[in-house]
Amino acid sequence: MIQTEDFKTIIDQYKVIFFDAFGVIKNYKGLVPGMDETFAYLKATQKEYYIVTNDASRSPLQLAASFKKLGLKMITPERIISSGMLAKEYLDLKVNDGIVAYLGTANSAHYIDNSGLHTLPVSAIDESNIDQVNALVFLDDEGFDWFRDLNKTVNILRRRNIPTIVANTDYAYPLNMHDVNIAIGGIASMIHQIVGKRFINFGKPDSLMFTFAYDQVRKTNPEITKKEILMIGDTLQTDILGGNKFGLDTMLVLSGNTLATDAETRITSTGIVPTYICEKAVIG
Amino acid sequence: MIQTEDFKTIIDQYKVIFFDAFGVIKNYKGLVPGMDETFAYLKATQKEYYIVTNDASRSPLQLAASFKKLGLKMITPERIISSGMLAKEYLDLKVNDGIVAYLGTANSAHYIDNSGLHTLPVSAIDESNIDQVNALVFLDDEGFDWFRDLNKTVNILRRRNIPTIVANTDYAYPLNMHDVNIAIGGIASMIHQIVGKRFINFGKPDSLMFTFAYDQVRKTNPEITKKEILMIGDTLQTDILGGNKFGLDTMLVLSGNTLATDAETRITSTGIVPTYICEKAVIG
Amino acid sequence: MIQTEDFKTIIDQYKVIFFDAFGVIKNYKGLVPGMDETFAYLKATQKEYYIVTNDASRSPLQLAASFKKLGLKMITPERIISSGMLAKEYLDLKVNDGIVAYLGTANSAHYIDNSGLHTLPVSAIDESNIDQVNALVFLDDEGFDWFRDLNKTVNILRRRNIPTIVANTDYAYPLNMHDVNIAIGGIASMIHQIVGKRFINFGKPDSLMFTFAYDQVRKTNPEITKKEILMIGDTLQTDILGGNKFGLDTMLVLSGNTLATDAETRITSTGIVPTYICEKAVIG
Amino acid sequence: MIQTEDFKTIIDQYKVIFFDAFGVIKNYKGLVPGMDETFAYLKATQKEYYIVTNDASRSPLQLAASFKKLGLKMITPERIISSGMLAKEYLDLKVNDGIVAYLGTANSAHYIDNSGLHTLPVSAIDESNIDQVNALVFLDDEGFDWFRDLNKTVNILRRRNIPTIVANTDYAYPLNMHDVNIAIGGIASMIHQIVGKRFINFGKPDSLMFTFAYDQVRKTNPEITKKEILMIGDTLQTDILGGNKFGLDTMLVLSGNTLATDAETRITSTGIVPTYICEKAVIG
Repeated sequence: MIQTEDFKTIIDQYKVIFFDAFGVIKNYKGLVPGMDETFAYLKATQKEYYIVTNDASRSPLQLAASFKKLGLKMITPERIISSGMLAKEYLDLKVNDGIVAYLGTANSAHYIDNSGLHTLPVSAIDESNIDQVNALVFLDDEGFDWFRDLNKTVNILRRRNIPTIVANTDYAYPLNMHDVNIAIGGIASMIHQIVGKRFINFGKPDSLMFTFAYDQVRKTNPEITKKEILMIGDTLQTDILGGNKFGLDTMLVLSGNTLATDAETRITSTGIVPTYICEKAVIG
Repeated sequence: MIQTEDFKTIIDQYKVIFFDAFGVIKNYKGLVPGMDETFAYLKATQKEYYIVTNDASRSPLQLAASFKKLGLKMITPERIISSGMLAKEYLDLKVNDGIVAYLGTANSAHYIDNSGLHTLPVSAIDESNIDQVNALVFLDDEGFDWFRDLNKTVNILRRRNIPTIVANTDYAYPLNMHDVNIAIGGIASMIHQIVGKRFINFGKPDSLMFTFAYDQVRKTNPEITKKEILMIGDTLQTDILGGNKFGLDTMLVLSGNTLATDAETRITSTGIVPTYICEKAVIG
Repeated sequence: MIQTEDFKTIIDQYKVIFFDAFGVIKNYKGLVPGMDETFAYLKATQKEYYIVTNDASRSPLQLAASFKKLGLKMITPERIISSGMLAKEYLDLKVNDGIVAYLGTANSAHYIDNSGLHTLPVSAIDESNIDQVNALVFLDDEGFDWFRDLNKTVNILRRRNIPTIVANTDYAYPLNMHDVNIAIGGIASMIHQIVGKRFINFGKPDSLMFTFAYDQVRKTNPEITKKEILMIGDTLQTDILGGNKFGLDTMLVLSGNTLATDAETRITSTGIVPTYICEKAVIG
Repeated sequence: MIQTEDFKTIIDQYKVIFFDAFGVIKNYKGLVPGMDETFAYLKATQKEYYIVTNDASRSPLQLAASFKKLGLKMITPERIISSGMLAKEYLDLKVNDGIVAYLGTANSAHYIDNSGLHTLPVSAIDESNIDQVNALVFLDDEGFDWFRDLNKTVNILRRRNIPTIVANTDYAYPLNMHDVNIAIGGIASMIHQIVGKRFINFGKPDSLMFTFAYDQVRKTNPEITKKEILMIGDTLQTDILGGNKFGLDTMLVLSGNTLATDAETRITSTGIVPTYICEKAVIG
């Protein structure tokens, strides 16, 4: 069992806290117990915080609503930075017209909509409109027929030389204590290998997620430095690696993907070393 | 356009010919025209031949029947070496009891059945029998529900530390002149990346396919050397690479995966050089 | 041969230009002819420009001096953003004490020096000081004995679980019209595979290079948007991929790594599509 | 600590034993104690045995001499199957004329010499003879200047589209209890990534090593089946994976690469499961 440190002592040293969502604030059983007190403490001590999540299946508005439903009322939409927001920014900047095809639910597609573009599920692409497809986005693992639509996606990408965006690069996500589901990042990786083209991956550990969050922080606090920000996450390969590389101090919590029993082995074998290790992101 | 050579002049120099099936003998439109004459010539000149195919979806008996239906009556089941046969041999040698779970049609599973083992589709595995699963085989991309059964496969492999066999390592196969379908090898590669365990890949370019075929040749002709065998295929990465590595002379034909317009670029960029290039495996 | 566009017409549409150095401004023969006029035009039209380079072997001061020596006097050190600067920032933020070991020339190490740290070449690490090594940086392919020091690097990384920084991720660089040399990025990739740990890669296409440059731009011009910046480079996998992902418009020039004869094939096979293609970054 | 089984009880069930050399019979300290008794027992019980090794730096004759020097007189050259022998067979079958360039000592090159070919170290290749180079072999990590000759190798492979053979695919080998050295397989992998071409890898886990050994067995014992052969090795990724795939029963010994403390973790995480685990290949 790995040695852990006291959560409160650590966060007292930082002005801004970035939280991963799944495995830190909530898990498949609901809210991590004690999380409301953590956020009450942040408010009382006037620390800034942001949720930095690879969840591209819902908009910040919907994500905030889901936290509220679990009992966490403080997390407002503007506190949430999701990889889906990066996908939207990319489309706004780089794709001027035509159709954006997507894999995911209608919900996940809703928030990448923008004025000039027409978003359509891959299932709605056929000979009549394929030549107008100017981008393709992997958003969510649900909302489509895997056999029919994954095969169609391969053939769209063979016909059209277009930017292809992977909004969530996770390969799998936990379903319950025992089982996982294949995530859209795993599917995107398979299709990438078949068509051989470079995809644009957003989501942690990529630095753009952290740049986006840091830009938000500086809008209200232009003087904050990276030294004053702590990234808290449950996954070495995304939260900790990405936070470290961006120059932040990092805290690994053991309430999600990484178990107390194998944290040490994983840190040694990957070489991804968090600044701190705590049992969970809970005070006291 | 790449320079090609005369097919007949070349095969006259060899005693045994190995043929890939798809892209050489047949394609999505049916038999490659003139193929019956090629096989008639082989018979007349008493050359041995074998079909060496990554098709694991059907037994040699069924494959021979499919050639017959297309008009090629000469290709008998004992002339066919498929990657599925290697999967079967592996199970015979290494798995003594329990359940062999598979992804594929009931047809594809039929011929991996053997005395001591019980083959069941992944869809039939549940809490009651998962602990008896002693091997898992990726056989064919059809015959199951992708969403439900691929997720189930991931979780079986997380629970059971068992040999996992990929009977066809192709990532995609042509459906018609424009489109391809994701093949079982592509799916296996995605699941391999998620569970992180080594899978056992059969099929060209792996040497075992060629060893198996060469052993067949030597049963009737113990004196045949590798120098007297020619491998004919349409794919650099499987047929030509595998044939070359096994020590055979190789012929690339342009009737399938590799087009006349890009053969040269592909040969240069991959460094996989066939001994000969012919338009198709047809005489005159 | 691929269709190219007029350089001047394009840059007139942008307020800020990012240039790659090698293959765009200079190559193994010296300055690309006409480059002084390009920079004179930028000055006359009051466009901002930055050199965004994966060269980590020299400091911005030394790089500016080398441009001056070639006849380009305008490029001052503060106009140069190199991947070595990111390595330095990382060390400043994340490594507080101990030794930083490096592979490269003494020159390349000089500018990563900072107050609290002691930089030493890998050759100077032995049993007496290995336990104080708190970071390792791959800086340059020259300045050390490959056999002795690469083997030593492997063993340092097996003993110490420390951040490992790759300041230049290029695998090779052109030496003359025919030949290339193995770059430090290729060496780092080999050692990564042997020790199995995650390294921290800076340099294009990574977004941090572009974030760093964009932050510089906004210091003097807070209102500049990504839409007003053009990235010019000769390499699809670094300059164009990285620029595209960051949300910039991009221009591929044919004066370096990518030849007019194979630009089209490479764009199609990689799926990395520049906004524009010009022969070179030269006016008229 | 993992549960081990009794060595003698296991080998009594087999007629033929394949041994890995390094980590099983000998290690950096010399012969594994008790090894002479193991071989005396094999002789007394008339079991066949072969040494199946990825060592391509010396000929079977030299390898047998090195065993003799260590005190093991029984292992005659014809009992040794090395990956270098596969490289030689490949050259005999597939390369008819010209120069075979190699990386390695003159010793390692000596035994790949054959009648029609001229072997030359990479250092001896220049403008006068580069166009006659028809194959390149990675043999050994010593015997050349890494900086000069690795760079030269890259440029030979960019100029000549020729078969490139990797005779030992190991990435590193143990030097003493603490340290390893980069092996020729690691170097070959780096150069493969730079030039982008397919190399021909011999050595375990590739099946050709086992095919070669099995063919030797059947020359004297045509009736031996795979069920009667046991592969003993210290490395999961080469000996055990390769043996399993070829259809042999396998034994992992803990006298080399795999330690008693992490054998279980490695077996679980790789999914490579040996049939048996023994402390060492020693009786009693």
